[in-house]
Amino acid sequence: MSVVDFARFVDELATQSGQAILPFFRAAFATEDKAKGAAAFDPVTEADRAGEAVMRQLIKRSFPDHGILGEEFGSEHEDAEYVWVLDPIDGTRGFIAGLPIWGTLIGLTRGGVPCYGLMNQPFTGERFFGDGEAAHYKGPHGSRRLRTRRKGDIAEAILHTTDPRLFGEGTNRQAYDRVERAVRLSRYGADCYAYAMLAAGHIDLVVEAELKPYDIVAMIPVIEGAGGIVTTWEGESAAKGGRIVAAGDKRLHEAALALLNG
Amino acid sequence: MSVVDFARFVDELATQSGQAILPFFRAAFATEDKAKGAAAFDPVTEADRAGEAVMRQLIKRSFPDHGILGEEFGSEHEDAEYVWVLDPIDGTRGFIAGLPIWGTLIGLTRGGVPCYGLMNQPFTGERFFGDGEAAHYKGPHGSRRLRTRRKGDIAEAILHTTDPRLFGEGTNRQAYDRVERAVRLSRYGADCYAYAMLAAGHIDLVVEAELKPYDIVAMIPVIEGAGGIVTTWEGESAAKGGRIVAAGDKRLHEAALALLNG
Repeated sequence: MSVVDFARFVDELATQSGQAILPFFRAAFATEDKAKGAAAFDPVTEADRAGEAVMRQLIKRSFPDHGILGEEFGSEHEDAEYVWVLDPIDGTRGFIAGLPIWGTLIGLTRGGVPCYGLMNQPFTGERFFGDGEAAHYKGPHGSRRLRTRRKGDIAEAILHTTDPRLFGEGTNRQAYDRVERAVRLSRYGADCYAYAMLAAGHIDLVVEAELKPYDIVAMIPVIEGAGGIVTTWEGESAAKGGRIVAAGDKRLHEAALALLNG
Repeated sequence: MSVVDFARFVDELATQSGQAILPFFRAAFATEDKAKGAAAFDPVTEADRAGEAVMRQLIKRSFPDHGILGEEFGSEHEDAEYVWVLDPIDGTRGFIAGLPIWGTLIGLTRGGVPCYGLMNQPFTGERFFGDGEAAHYKGPHGSRRLRTRRKGDIAEAILHTTDPRLFGEGTNRQAYDRVERAVRLSRYGADCYAYAMLAAGHIDLVVEAELKPYDIVAMIPVIEGAGGIVTTWEGESAAKGGRIVAAGDKRLHEAALALLNG
Protein backbone atom coordinates (compact mmCIF):
# COMPACT_ATOMS: atom_id res chain seq x y z
CA MET A 1 0.00 0.00 0.00
CA SER A 2 1.37 3.36 -0.96
CA VAL A 3 1.56 6.51 1.12
CA VAL A 4 -1.22 7.95 -1.02
CA ASP A 5 -3.57 5.24 0.20
CA PHE A 6 -2.48 5.83 3.77
CA ALA A 7 -3.33 9.52 3.33
CA ARG A 8 -7.01 8.74 2.83
CA PHE A 9 -7.00 6.35 5.77
CA VAL A 10 -5.32 8.90 8.03
CA ASP A 11 -7.96 11.45 7.08
CA GLU A 12 -10.56 8.96 8.28
CA LEU A 13 -8.65 8.46 11.55
CA ALA A 14 -8.63 12.24 12.00
CA THR A 15 -12.33 12.60 11.27
CA GLN A 16 -13.40 9.83 13.63
CA SER A 17 -11.03 10.76 16.47
CA GLY A 18 -12.13 14.39 16.12
CA GLN A 19 -15.76 13.37 16.51
CA ALA A 20 -14.85 11.36 19.60
CA ILE A 21 -12.78 14.14 21.20
CA LEU A 22 -14.66 17.34 20.39
CA PRO A 23 -17.67 16.79 22.71
CA PHE A 24 -15.23 16.85 25.65
CA PHE A 25 -13.54 20.11 24.63
CA ARG A 26 -14.73 22.99 26.84
CA ALA A 27 -17.06 20.55 28.58
CA ALA A 28 -15.29 20.78 31.94
CA PHE A 29 -17.42 23.57 33.30
CA ALA A 30 -20.75 22.02 32.39
CA THR A 31 -19.86 18.67 33.88
CA GLU A 32 -18.33 20.04 37.06
CA ASP A 33 -21.47 22.07 37.57
CA LYS A 34 -23.80 19.11 37.32
CA ALA A 35 -22.56 17.00 40.17
CA LYS A 36 -20.59 17.83 43.25
CA GLY A 37 -17.81 15.38 43.85
CA ALA A 38 -17.57 14.63 40.16
CA ALA A 39 -13.80 14.97 40.41
CA ALA A 40 -13.50 11.44 39.06
CA PHE A 41 -14.63 12.78 35.70
CA ASP A 42 -11.64 14.26 33.92
CA PRO A 43 -12.69 15.50 30.46
CA VAL A 44 -9.20 15.50 28.98
CA THR A 45 -8.50 11.92 30.05
CA GLU A 46 -11.90 10.80 28.78
CA ALA A 47 -11.29 12.60 25.49
CA ASP A 48 -7.78 11.16 25.18
CA ARG A 49 -9.08 7.63 25.69
CA ALA A 50 -12.07 8.01 23.40
CA GLY A 51 -9.92 9.45 20.63
CA GLU A 52 -7.23 6.81 20.86
CA ALA A 53 -9.73 3.93 21.18
CA VAL A 54 -11.49 4.83 17.94
CA MET A 55 -8.18 5.14 16.09
CA ARG A 56 -6.88 1.81 17.42
CA GLN A 57 -10.09 0.09 16.39
CA LEU A 58 -9.89 1.45 12.84
CA ILE A 59 -6.21 0.55 12.49
CA LYS A 60 -6.67 -2.99 13.79
CA ARG A 61 -9.58 -3.59 11.45
CA SER A 62 -7.79 -2.22 8.37
CA PHE A 63 -4.17 -3.22 9.09
CA PRO A 64 -4.15 -6.06 11.63
CA ASP A 65 -0.42 -6.69 11.15
CA HIS A 66 0.57 -3.08 11.89
CA GLY A 67 1.99 -2.02 15.23
CA ILE A 68 0.59 0.77 17.39
CA LEU A 69 2.24 3.08 19.92
CA GLY A 70 -0.28 5.32 21.66
CA GLU A 71 -0.11 7.79 24.52
CA GLU A 72 -3.02 6.28 26.41
CA PHE A 73 -3.00 2.54 25.76
CA GLY A 74 0.69 1.77 25.26
CA SER A 75 2.27 -0.25 22.48
CA GLU A 76 1.57 -3.46 20.59
CA HIS A 77 3.53 -5.11 17.74
CA GLU A 78 6.20 -2.43 18.03
CA ASP A 79 8.48 -4.59 15.84
CA ALA A 80 6.05 -4.55 12.89
CA GLU A 81 7.17 -2.98 9.60
CA TYR A 82 4.52 -0.26 9.91
CA VAL A 83 3.85 1.24 13.33
CA TRP A 84 1.23 3.92 14.04
CA VAL A 85 2.25 6.52 16.60
CA LEU A 86 -0.75 8.27 18.15
CA ASP A 87 -1.33 11.16 20.52
CA PRO A 88 -5.06 11.87 20.68
CA ILE A 89 -4.56 15.21 22.49
CA ASP A 90 -1.17 16.87 22.24
CA GLY A 91 -1.38 20.08 24.25
CA THR A 92 -3.34 18.80 27.22
CA ARG A 93 -3.01 22.01 29.21
CA GLY A 94 -4.28 24.08 26.28
CA PHE A 95 -7.20 21.66 25.91
CA ILE A 96 -8.04 22.03 29.61
CA ALA A 97 -7.84 25.84 29.37
CA GLY A 98 -10.22 25.88 26.37
CA LEU A 99 -7.64 27.11 23.84
CA PRO A 100 -8.03 25.70 20.30
CA ILE A 101 -4.31 25.06 19.79
CA TRP A 102 -4.05 21.41 20.86
CA GLY A 103 -4.04 18.73 18.19
CA THR A 104 -4.51 15.06 17.45
CA LEU A 105 -1.23 13.61 16.20
CA ILE A 106 -1.30 10.63 13.84
CA GLY A 107 2.08 9.36 12.69
CA LEU A 108 3.16 6.32 10.72
CA THR A 109 6.65 4.83 10.76
CA ARG A 110 8.06 2.25 8.37
CA GLY A 111 11.07 0.37 9.68
CA GLY A 112 11.29 2.94 12.46
CA VAL A 113 11.39 5.89 10.07
CA PRO A 114 8.48 8.37 10.10
CA CYS A 115 6.88 8.24 6.63
CA TYR A 116 3.54 10.00 7.05
CA GLY A 117 2.05 12.35 9.62
CA LEU A 118 -1.01 14.47 10.26
CA MET A 119 -2.02 16.99 12.91
CA ASN A 120 -5.76 17.52 13.26
CA GLN A 121 -7.37 20.45 15.10
CA PRO A 122 -11.05 19.51 15.07
CA PHE A 123 -12.37 22.70 16.70
CA THR A 124 -10.92 25.02 14.06
CA GLY A 125 -11.23 22.40 11.32
CA GLU A 126 -7.52 22.52 10.44
CA ARG A 127 -5.30 19.70 9.22
CA PHE A 128 -1.54 19.77 8.59
CA PHE A 129 -0.12 16.67 6.89
CA GLY A 130 2.91 15.47 5.00
CA ASP A 131 4.96 12.51 3.83
CA GLY A 132 8.48 13.94 4.10
CA GLU A 133 8.48 14.96 0.43
CA ALA A 134 5.64 17.47 0.55
CA ALA A 135 3.24 18.85 3.14
CA HIS A 136 -0.20 20.41 2.93
CA TYR A 137 -2.75 22.36 4.91
CA LYS A 138 -6.54 22.19 4.84
CA GLY A 139 -8.52 24.70 6.89
CA PRO A 140 -11.77 26.63 7.13
CA HIS A 141 -10.46 29.40 4.89
CA GLY A 142 -8.77 27.24 2.23
CA SER A 143 -6.04 24.75 1.40
CA ARG A 144 -2.41 25.23 0.46
CA ARG A 145 1.00 23.68 0.18
CA LEU A 146 3.07 24.08 3.33
CA ARG A 147 6.55 25.55 3.00
CA THR A 148 8.84 26.63 5.78
CA ARG A 149 10.34 30.12 5.80
CA ARG A 150 13.92 30.08 4.53
CA LYS A 151 15.45 32.52 6.94
CA GLY A 152 18.98 31.67 7.96
CA ASP A 153 19.68 34.55 10.33
CA ILE A 154 18.88 33.62 13.93
CA ALA A 155 18.68 37.31 14.87
CA GLU A 156 15.53 37.51 12.71
CA ALA A 157 13.97 34.26 13.87
CA ILE A 158 10.68 33.68 15.70
CA LEU A 159 11.09 30.96 18.33
CA HIS A 160 8.47 28.88 20.09
CA THR A 161 8.59 26.59 23.08
CA THR A 162 5.65 25.14 24.96
CA ASP A 163 6.83 26.20 28.40
CA PRO A 164 10.34 27.24 29.50
CA ARG A 165 9.74 25.51 32.85
CA LEU A 166 9.86 22.15 31.04
CA PHE A 167 13.63 22.61 30.66
CA GLY A 168 14.09 22.48 34.43
CA GLU A 169 16.71 24.69 36.11
CA GLY A 170 19.89 23.04 34.83
CA THR A 171 21.91 22.90 31.63
CA ASN A 172 18.87 22.32 29.40
CA ARG A 173 17.43 25.63 30.54
CA GLN A 174 20.74 27.42 30.03
CA ALA A 175 20.95 25.98 26.51
CA TYR A 176 17.41 27.09 25.70
CA ASP A 177 18.07 30.55 27.14
CA ARG A 178 21.06 30.99 24.80
CA VAL A 179 18.74 30.41 21.85
CA GLU A 180 16.03 32.65 23.28
CA ARG A 181 18.49 35.51 23.70
CA ALA A 182 19.66 35.14 20.09
CA VAL A 183 16.28 35.36 18.36
CA ARG A 184 14.10 38.31 17.42
CA LEU A 185 10.91 37.11 19.10
CA SER A 186 9.93 34.19 21.29
CA ARG A 187 6.56 32.93 22.43
CA TYR A 188 5.38 30.24 24.84
CA GLY A 189 2.50 27.81 24.86
CA ALA A 190 1.60 25.98 21.66
CA ASP A 191 2.69 22.31 21.77
CA CYS A 192 2.19 20.59 18.39
CA TYR A 193 0.62 23.73 16.97
CA ALA A 194 4.05 25.37 17.05
CA TYR A 195 5.48 22.66 14.74
CA ALA A 196 2.50 23.20 12.44
CA MET A 197 3.18 26.94 12.34
CA LEU A 198 6.84 26.22 11.59
CA ALA A 199 5.83 23.98 8.66
CA ALA A 200 3.49 26.75 7.49
CA GLY A 201 6.28 29.35 7.48
CA HIS A 202 4.93 31.56 10.26
CA ILE A 203 7.64 30.80 12.80
CA ASP A 204 11.24 29.71 12.33
CA LEU A 205 12.35 27.66 15.30
CA VAL A 206 10.94 25.32 17.96
CA VAL A 207 13.10 24.10 20.86
CA GLU A 208 11.77 21.59 23.37
CA ALA A 209 12.88 18.91 25.81
CA GLU A 210 11.40 15.76 27.32
CA LEU A 211 9.26 14.90 24.30
CA LYS A 212 7.85 11.41 23.91
CA PRO A 213 7.91 9.75 20.46
CA TYR A 214 4.16 10.32 20.09
CA ASP A 215 4.69 14.08 20.72
CA ILE A 216 6.82 14.46 17.60
CA VAL A 217 6.73 11.48 15.18
CA ALA A 218 3.62 12.71 13.33
CA MET A 219 5.13 16.18 12.85
CA ILE A 220 8.42 14.96 11.34
CA PRO A 221 7.08 14.18 7.82
CA VAL A 222 5.09 17.44 7.94
CA ILE A 223 8.11 19.57 8.85
CA GLU A 224 10.43 17.78 6.42
CA GLY A 225 7.79 17.79 3.67
CA ALA A 226 7.54 21.55 4.09
CA GLY A 227 11.30 21.94 3.69
CA GLY A 228 12.27 22.14 7.35
CA ILE A 229 14.58 20.10 9.51
CA VAL A 230 13.90 18.49 12.88
CA THR A 231 16.40 16.54 15.01
CA THR A 232 17.49 16.02 18.58
CA TRP A 233 19.84 18.61 20.09
CA GLU A 234 22.63 16.21 19.07
CA GLY A 235 21.52 16.33 15.44
CA GLU A 236 20.17 12.75 15.50
CA SER A 237 16.76 11.46 14.39
CA ALA A 238 13.88 13.04 16.30
CA ALA A 239 11.77 9.88 16.03
CA LYS A 240 12.50 8.73 19.57
CA GLY A 241 11.64 12.09 21.13
CA GLY A 242 13.81 13.65 23.83
CA ARG A 243 15.35 17.09 23.34
CA ILE A 244 14.09 18.40 20.00
CA VAL A 245 15.00 21.33 17.75
CA ALA A 246 13.04 22.12 14.57
CA ALA A 247 13.91 24.84 12.09
CA GLY A 248 12.47 26.10 8.84
CA ASP A 249 15.94 26.63 7.41
CA LYS A 250 19.04 24.42 7.50
CA ARG A 251 21.42 27.28 8.36
CA LEU A 252 19.15 28.31 11.21
CA HIS A 253 19.08 24.73 12.45
CA GLU A 254 22.88 24.68 12.51
CA ALA A 255 23.01 27.99 14.37
CA ALA A 256 20.52 26.69 16.95
CA LEU A 257 22.47 23.43 17.42
CA ALA A 258 25.64 25.41 17.99
CA LEU A 259 23.95 27.51 20.69
CA LEU A 260 22.25 24.51 22.32
CA ASN A 261 25.54 22.63 22.52
CA GLY A 262 27.66 25.72 23.28
CA MET B 1 -29.66 54.61 22.91
CA SER B 2 -29.71 51.46 24.98
CA VAL B 3 -27.00 48.85 25.36
CA VAL B 4 -29.14 46.50 23.28
CA ASP B 5 -28.87 48.85 20.32
CA PHE B 6 -25.12 49.15 20.83
CA ALA B 7 -24.89 45.35 20.76
CA ARG B 8 -26.02 45.20 17.15
CA PHE B 9 -23.68 48.04 16.21
CA VAL B 10 -20.73 46.35 17.93
CA ASP B 11 -21.47 43.16 15.98
CA GLU B 12 -21.18 45.22 12.80
CA LEU B 13 -17.86 46.70 14.01
CA ALA B 14 -16.63 43.15 14.62
CA THR B 15 -17.75 41.89 11.23
CA GLN B 16 -16.17 44.75 9.31
CA SER B 17 -12.92 44.87 11.27
CA GLY B 18 -12.64 41.09 10.93
CA GLN B 19 -12.97 41.38 7.16
CA ALA B 20 -10.27 44.05 7.15
CA ILE B 21 -7.85 42.10 9.37
CA LEU B 22 -8.22 38.48 8.27
CA PRO B 23 -6.49 38.80 4.87
CA PHE B 24 -3.29 39.79 6.72
CA PHE B 25 -3.39 36.82 9.12
CA ARG B 26 -0.80 34.21 8.12
CA ALA B 27 0.08 36.37 5.13
CA ALA B 28 3.61 37.15 6.32
CA PHE B 29 5.26 34.26 4.54
CA ALA B 30 3.62 34.86 1.17
CA THR B 31 4.44 38.55 1.18
CA GLU B 32 8.02 38.16 2.34
CA ASP B 33 8.53 35.63 -0.40
CA LYS B 34 7.37 37.94 -3.15
CA ALA B 35 9.87 40.72 -2.84
CA LYS B 36 13.28 40.89 -1.28
CA GLY B 37 13.70 43.95 0.84
CA ALA B 38 9.99 44.06 1.56
CA ALA B 39 10.80 44.59 5.22
CA ALA B 40 8.76 47.79 5.16
CA PHE B 41 5.65 45.65 4.85
CA ASP B 42 4.63 44.55 8.33
CA PRO B 43 1.41 42.50 8.12
CA VAL B 44 0.43 42.96 11.75
CA THR B 45 0.80 46.74 11.61
CA GLU B 46 -1.11 46.87 8.33
CA ALA B 47 -3.84 44.67 9.80
CA ASP B 48 -3.97 46.74 12.99
CA ARG B 49 -4.40 49.95 11.02
CA ALA B 50 -6.92 48.54 8.56
CA GLY B 51 -9.02 47.09 11.41
CA GLU B 52 -9.00 50.26 13.48
CA ALA B 53 -9.62 52.55 10.51
CA VAL B 54 -12.81 50.74 9.50
CA MET B 55 -14.09 50.81 13.09
CA ARG B 56 -13.33 54.51 13.53
CA GLN B 57 -15.12 55.30 10.27
CA LEU B 58 -18.25 53.39 11.32
CA ILE B 59 -18.27 54.97 14.79
CA LYS B 60 -17.84 58.53 13.47
CA ARG B 61 -20.59 58.05 10.94
CA SER B 62 -23.05 56.57 13.46
CA PHE B 63 -22.08 58.45 16.64
CA PRO B 64 -20.22 61.63 15.73
CA ASP B 65 -20.30 62.92 19.33
CA HIS B 66 -18.71 59.79 20.82
CA GLY B 67 -15.06 59.65 21.81
CA ILE B 68 -12.57 57.07 20.57
CA LEU B 69 -9.42 55.65 22.14
CA GLY B 70 -7.60 53.28 19.82
CA GLU B 71 -4.29 51.46 19.93
CA GLU B 72 -3.16 52.65 16.51
CA PHE B 73 -4.58 56.13 15.96
CA GLY B 74 -4.74 57.58 19.49
CA SER B 75 -7.64 59.33 21.14
CA GLU B 76 -10.24 61.92 20.20
CA HIS B 77 -13.07 63.40 22.30
CA GLU B 78 -11.88 61.45 25.30
CA ASP B 79 -14.14 63.59 27.51
CA ALA B 80 -17.32 62.52 25.68
CA GLU B 81 -20.03 60.66 27.61
CA TYR B 82 -19.50 57.56 25.49
CA VAL B 83 -15.97 56.58 24.52
CA TRP B 84 -15.07 53.58 22.33
CA VAL B 85 -11.92 51.76 23.35
CA LEU B 86 -10.44 49.73 20.49
CA ASP B 87 -7.62 47.25 20.04
CA PRO B 88 -7.81 45.80 16.53
CA ILE B 89 -5.29 43.03 17.31
CA ASP B 90 -4.74 42.11 20.92
CA GLY B 91 -2.15 39.35 20.95
CA THR B 92 0.20 40.70 18.32
CA ARG B 93 2.85 38.03 18.87
CA GLY B 94 0.29 35.26 18.52
CA PHE B 95 -0.96 36.89 15.31
CA ILE B 96 2.59 37.03 13.94
CA ALA B 97 3.16 33.37 14.85
CA GLY B 98 -0.03 32.28 13.07
CA LEU B 99 -1.90 31.20 16.22
CA PRO B 100 -5.67 31.84 16.20
CA ILE B 101 -5.81 33.15 19.78
CA TRP B 102 -5.50 36.89 19.19
CA GLY B 103 -8.64 38.98 19.19
CA THR B 104 -10.20 42.28 18.20
CA LEU B 105 -11.28 44.15 21.32
CA ILE B 106 -14.20 46.56 21.12
CA GLY B 107 -15.14 48.29 24.37
CA LEU B 108 -17.54 51.08 25.21
CA THR B 109 -17.34 53.26 28.31
CA ARG B 110 -20.01 55.60 29.65
CA GLY B 111 -18.75 58.27 31.99
CA GLY B 112 -15.48 56.36 32.16
CA VAL B 113 -17.16 53.09 33.23
CA PRO B 114 -16.99 50.11 30.83
CA CYS B 115 -20.59 49.27 29.86
CA TYR B 116 -20.25 46.96 26.86
CA GLY B 117 -17.49 44.84 25.42
CA LEU B 118 -16.83 42.29 22.70
CA MET B 119 -13.86 40.13 21.73
CA ASN B 120 -13.91 38.90 18.14
CA GLN B 121 -11.74 36.08 16.78
CA PRO B 122 -12.44 36.20 13.06
CA PHE B 123 -10.37 33.15 12.08
CA THR B 124 -12.25 30.75 14.37
CA GLY B 125 -15.49 32.71 14.06
CA GLU B 126 -15.83 33.22 17.81
CA ARG B 127 -17.30 36.18 19.68
CA PHE B 128 -17.41 36.78 23.43
CA PHE B 129 -19.51 39.76 24.54
CA GLY B 130 -21.19 41.20 27.60
CA ASP B 131 -22.67 44.28 29.27
CA GLY B 132 -21.64 43.70 32.88
CA GLU B 133 -24.99 42.06 33.70
CA ALA B 134 -24.72 39.07 31.37
CA ALA B 135 -22.25 37.70 28.84
CA HIS B 136 -22.60 35.44 25.83
CA TYR B 137 -20.60 33.38 23.36
CA LYS B 138 -21.19 32.73 19.68
CA GLY B 139 -18.94 30.29 17.86
CA PRO B 140 -18.74 27.79 15.01
CA HIS B 141 -20.17 25.00 17.16
CA GLY B 142 -22.96 26.96 18.86
CA SER B 143 -23.94 29.77 21.22
CA ARG B 144 -24.26 29.89 24.97
CA ARG B 145 -24.40 32.05 28.05
CA LEU B 146 -20.98 32.67 29.58
CA ARG B 147 -20.54 31.92 33.27
CA THR B 148 -17.31 31.86 35.21
CA ARG B 149 -16.35 28.84 37.27
CA ARG B 150 -17.11 29.40 40.96
CA LYS B 151 -14.06 27.82 42.47
CA GLY B 152 -12.77 29.57 45.56
CA ASP B 153 -9.77 27.36 46.35
CA ILE B 154 -6.60 28.75 44.78
CA ALA B 155 -4.93 25.33 45.09
CA GLU B 156 -7.39 24.07 42.45
CA ALA B 157 -7.16 27.09 40.17
CA ILE B 158 -5.95 27.27 36.56
CA LEU B 159 -3.91 30.44 36.00
CA HIS B 160 -3.00 32.21 32.78
CA THR B 161 -0.57 34.96 31.98
CA THR B 162 0.56 36.08 28.55
CA ASP B 163 4.27 35.93 29.29
CA PRO B 164 6.01 35.87 32.69
CA ARG B 165 8.83 37.99 31.20
CA LEU B 166 6.38 40.92 31.03
CA PHE B 167 6.62 41.22 34.83
CA GLY B 168 10.31 42.12 34.60
CA GLU B 169 12.74 40.85 37.24
CA GLY B 170 11.59 42.87 40.25
CA THR B 171 8.72 42.86 42.74
CA ASN B 172 6.03 42.38 40.08
CA ARG B 173 7.63 39.09 39.08
CA GLN B 174 7.95 37.98 42.69
CA ALA B 175 4.28 38.79 43.26
CA TYR B 176 3.26 36.83 40.17
CA ASP B 177 5.46 33.90 41.18
CA ARG B 178 3.69 33.68 44.54
CA VAL B 179 0.39 33.23 42.72
CA GLU B 180 1.89 30.75 40.23
CA ARG B 181 3.24 28.60 43.07
CA ALA B 182 -0.19 28.54 44.76
CA VAL B 183 -2.28 27.32 41.82
CA ARG B 184 -2.84 23.85 40.40
CA LEU B 185 -1.90 24.64 36.80
CA SER B 186 -0.52 27.64 34.95
CA ARG B 187 -0.14 28.34 31.25
CA TYR B 188 1.48 31.10 29.23
CA GLY B 189 0.59 32.84 25.99
CA ALA B 190 -3.02 33.84 25.34
CA ASP B 191 -3.53 37.61 25.73
CA CYS B 192 -7.24 38.54 25.50
CA TYR B 193 -8.16 34.94 24.79
CA ALA B 194 -7.29 34.11 28.41
CA TYR B 195 -9.90 36.59 29.69
CA ALA B 196 -12.41 35.05 27.32
CA MET B 197 -11.62 31.56 28.66
CA LEU B 198 -12.02 32.89 32.20
CA ALA B 199 -15.46 34.31 31.33
CA ALA B 200 -16.32 30.95 29.75
CA GLY B 201 -15.44 29.04 32.92
CA HIS B 202 -12.45 27.12 31.53
CA ILE B 203 -9.78 28.87 33.58
CA ASP B 204 -9.97 30.59 36.95
CA LEU B 205 -7.38 33.33 37.16
CA VAL B 206 -5.49 35.76 34.91
CA VAL B 207 -2.64 37.90 36.28
CA GLU B 208 -0.91 40.51 34.10
CA ALA B 209 1.03 43.75 34.27
CA GLU B 210 1.63 46.74 32.02
CA LEU B 211 -1.77 46.56 30.31
CA LYS B 212 -3.08 49.56 28.41
CA PRO B 213 -6.75 50.53 28.75
CA TYR B 214 -7.47 49.13 25.28
CA ASP B 215 -6.02 45.75 26.35
CA ILE B 216 -8.66 45.26 29.04
CA VAL B 217 -11.65 47.67 28.83
CA ALA B 218 -13.59 45.50 26.35
CA MET B 219 -13.14 42.40 28.52
CA ILE B 220 -14.42 44.00 31.75
CA PRO B 221 -18.17 43.83 30.92
CA VAL B 222 -17.64 40.30 29.56
CA ILE B 223 -15.91 39.04 32.71
CA GLU B 224 -18.33 40.83 35.05
CA GLY B 225 -21.33 39.77 32.98
CA ALA B 226 -20.18 36.17 33.33
CA GLY B 227 -19.99 36.52 37.12
CA GLY B 228 -16.27 37.18 37.45
CA ILE B 229 -14.29 40.03 38.96
CA VAL B 230 -11.45 42.03 37.43
CA THR B 231 -9.46 44.81 39.12
CA THR B 232 -5.97 46.19 39.48
CA TRP B 233 -3.66 44.47 41.95
CA GLU B 234 -4.78 47.18 44.41
CA GLY B 235 -8.43 46.16 43.97
CA GLU B 236 -9.29 49.32 42.02
CA SER B 237 -11.10 49.65 38.66
CA ALA B 238 -9.29 47.88 35.84
CA ALA B 239 -10.49 50.42 33.27
CA LYS B 240 -7.21 52.32 33.17
CA GLY B 241 -5.12 49.16 32.67
CA GLY B 242 -1.89 48.62 34.57
CA ARG B 243 -1.41 45.56 36.76
CA ILE B 244 -4.56 43.44 36.37
CA VAL B 245 -5.98 40.41 38.15
CA ALA B 246 -9.16 38.68 36.96
CA ALA B 247 -10.88 35.79 38.72
CA GLY B 248 -13.96 33.69 38.11
CA ASP B 249 -14.77 33.67 41.81
CA LYS B 250 -14.75 36.45 44.41
CA ARG B 251 -12.97 34.36 47.06
CA LEU B 252 -10.31 33.40 44.58
CA HIS B 253 -9.86 37.07 43.63
CA GLU B 254 -9.30 37.91 47.30
CA ALA B 255 -6.79 35.10 47.70
CA ALA B 256 -4.90 36.29 44.60
CA LEU B 257 -4.88 39.92 45.80
CA ALA B 258 -3.47 38.78 49.16
CA LEU B 259 -0.65 36.90 47.43
CA LEU B 260 0.08 39.70 44.96
CA ASN B 261 0.32 42.24 47.78
CA GLY B 262 1.98 39.86 50.26
